[in-house]
Amino acid sequence: MPPLEPTHEADFTFATEQPFRLDGGAELSPVTLRYALYGTLAPARDNVILICHALSGSARAADWWPDLIGPGLPLDPQRSCLVCSNVLGSCYGSTGPASIDPRTGKPYGGDFPLLTIQDMVRAQAHLLDHLGIERVRAVVGGSIGGLQALAWATLFPERLERCIAIGAAPLSAMGLALSHLQQQAIQLDPAWRGGYYSPDEPPLAGLSLARGIATCSYKSAELLQERFGRRPNRAGDDPRRSLQGRFDVGGYLDHQGAIFLRRFDANSYLYLSRAMDTFEFGATLEEEARLLARIRAGVILIGISSDWLFPPEDIRALAERMRTLGISVRYEELDSSHGHDGFLADLPQLSPLLNPALHE
Amino acid sequence: MPPLEPTHEADFTFATEQPFRLDGGAELSPVTLRYALYGTLAPARDNVILICHALSGSARAADWWPDLIGPGLPLDPQRSCLVCSNVLGSCYGSTGPASIDPRTGKPYGGDFPLLTIQDMVRAQAHLLDHLGIERVRAVVGGSIGGLQALAWATLFPERLERCIAIGAAPLSAMGLALSHLQQQAIQLDPAWRGGYYSPDEPPLAGLSLARGIATCSYKSAELLQERFGRRPNRAGDDPRRSLQGRFDVGGYLDHQGAIFLRRFDANSYLYLSRAMDTFEFGATLEEEARLLARIRAGVILIGISSDWLFPPEDIRALAERMRTLGISVRYEELDSSHGHDGFLADLPQLSPLLNPALHE
Repeated sequence: MPPLEPTHEADFTFATEQPFRLDGGAELSPVTLRYALYGTLAPARDNVILICHALSGSARAADWWPDLIGPGLPLDPQRSCLVCSNVLGSCYGSTGPASIDPRTGKPYGGDFPLLTIQDMVRAQAHLLDHLGIERVRAVVGGSIGGLQALAWATLFPERLERCIAIGAAPLSAMGLALSHLQQQAIQLDPAWRGGYYSPDEPPLAGLSLARGIATCSYKSAELLQERFGRRPNRAGDDPRRSLQGRFDVGGYLDHQGAIFLRRFDANSYLYLSRAMDTFEFGATLEEEARLLARIRAGVILIGISSDWLFPPEDIRALAERMRTLGISVRYEELDSSHGHDGFLADLPQLSPLLNPALHE
Repeated sequence: MPPLEPTHEADFTFATEQPFRLDGGAELSPVTLRYALYGTLAPARDNVILICHALSGSARAADWWPDLIGPGLPLDPQRSCLVCSNVLGSCYGSTGPASIDPRTGKPYGGDFPLLTIQDMVRAQAHLLDHLGIERVRAVVGGSIGGLQALAWATLFPERLERCIAIGAAPLSAMGLALSHLQQQAIQLDPAWRGGYYSPDEPPLAGLSLARGIATCSYKSAELLQERFGRRPNRAGDDPRRSLQGRFDVGGYLDHQGAIFLRRFDANSYLYLSRAMDTFEFGATLEEEARLLARIRAGVILIGISSDWLFPPEDIRALAERMRTLGISVRYEELDSSHGHDGFLADLPQLSPLLNPALHE
């Protein structure tokens, strides 16, 4: 079955007069967000669930959460109005490094300012204002989408009833390390040109390698072993005969890299992955506690048992710290062998966790 | 204290008349192995322990195992004659891709044939023949060195009393994936030139990135978190200000990459890491059982508790399969937070495991 089509899909442009000021001090003007609605806004505009996408997602949430969004599913457009927007910095219709910088008439490229997850969320808040939505029933997302849900809960405590973050917490050092290697892979590609590559000559080798590293971090060792084991590449390679010969898992990583090139911009990848890196509630536990104390929403944190990019222990520990601060928080664990990708790949397991989280 | 100097260090050249035939069918002629001896050969030549090094090691074993090799230490040159040779394919004095191909008068480069761990071991056997050593008390090594010890036990069952392999077993799919990404990083660097780079213009960016990926796989998440956490790079970078700004763990990975460039050849890296990938006892459990049945040595397999490149579960499972075949095998676990690098970094913990393994 093809994924559900949005009920409405459009661009919203703001900051045309007053620039949009980012956490880092830079300003963007104008800012466009591509957004999609699934379902219909109630007259009281009180039936909204805001969905936040991960690194490579788009506003078309049903494209990447096909088994969660639809009639009778946890995210049901007949029951709620689902809103999702492509994040600031991405390349699926929203303002990002590949957009034209009005000051130069050329793509921003390396001139695009660094973003934070909070910047993305404040841009989304402008969209909700525009749609006349004061408060949402829930903000839900996985990975970077989960970080956005967490940022919503601290930035706009009164605007959401629930915050549901799956496989998301401030990255620990191993996550930062894997992220660094991906960013290096792109930046070391001579075709990257400091970010000022032409759209016709993007840093393909670097982006493909970055995606390969990411894919490794999205999967569990168990899943890779089960799927690929030590078999040579199904395309017929022989890793014993030539340096170019690959094992099956190598062929898979290369394939993941190759299909990604056709659909993603290298600079967007850099900016979004850096926003993921820098997300935290504060540099110290005291700072974190001060920020978390703002939360009014009910929080559901879902760890993924085999996730080693955002380990479930880190998420459980965050839930514990929240509980200590008196926040209404519940920790759930998605029992999945898919690794971090479980939030996209293991939807039959995720549904029964999301349903009560969204509706009880 | 500076590491112990070898008692004797020399080059041994063979296959000058008859070429050395590799598992893959290619031939090398001549073959040189750089080797080092610590201690003195007993007149009966029955006091030898053969030490096998890992990917980036050299014949000078005390340089990389300083706290294991010396008077009163587990590898005691007053008690045994320790022999270590730089593996075939490496760049510390033995024949490898950077050596001159006598057929062309130029470095082999991309013409160097693929190697197996067994090829390295058969070359070492020539060295032992040359030194008049028929049988050794033990073959011991970690990582690729451990794979060599395992290959010794099946290829030359009568020539060793004990086989001690630390953090070593056939790689599983996650290990193959991480290895693939490293090989891609080098091969995607335009300076690699299909392996035919000039010694003055090696693929530095690719090798540095490969080493960064490897460093991640050598460490545990726990260790990285403890050492680096989410702190910005100690050099003063600000990851919130520019794409070039790094977290501390990123600065560390780059540093590990940079110092590696000064001491290692990119092609040697490719060939040795591919030899690690292809090591197995057979493509099926039946083939494995047939090969393992050749073993006569006492086998001690040591897993490292926090190792995710060669997970301790894989090593324990290998020990179980050996036990089922009637092999005299013992599994020990090095309790270390260092990850795979524990075999180099956690010597105080390793010593008490190695001492009985070597001498009881």
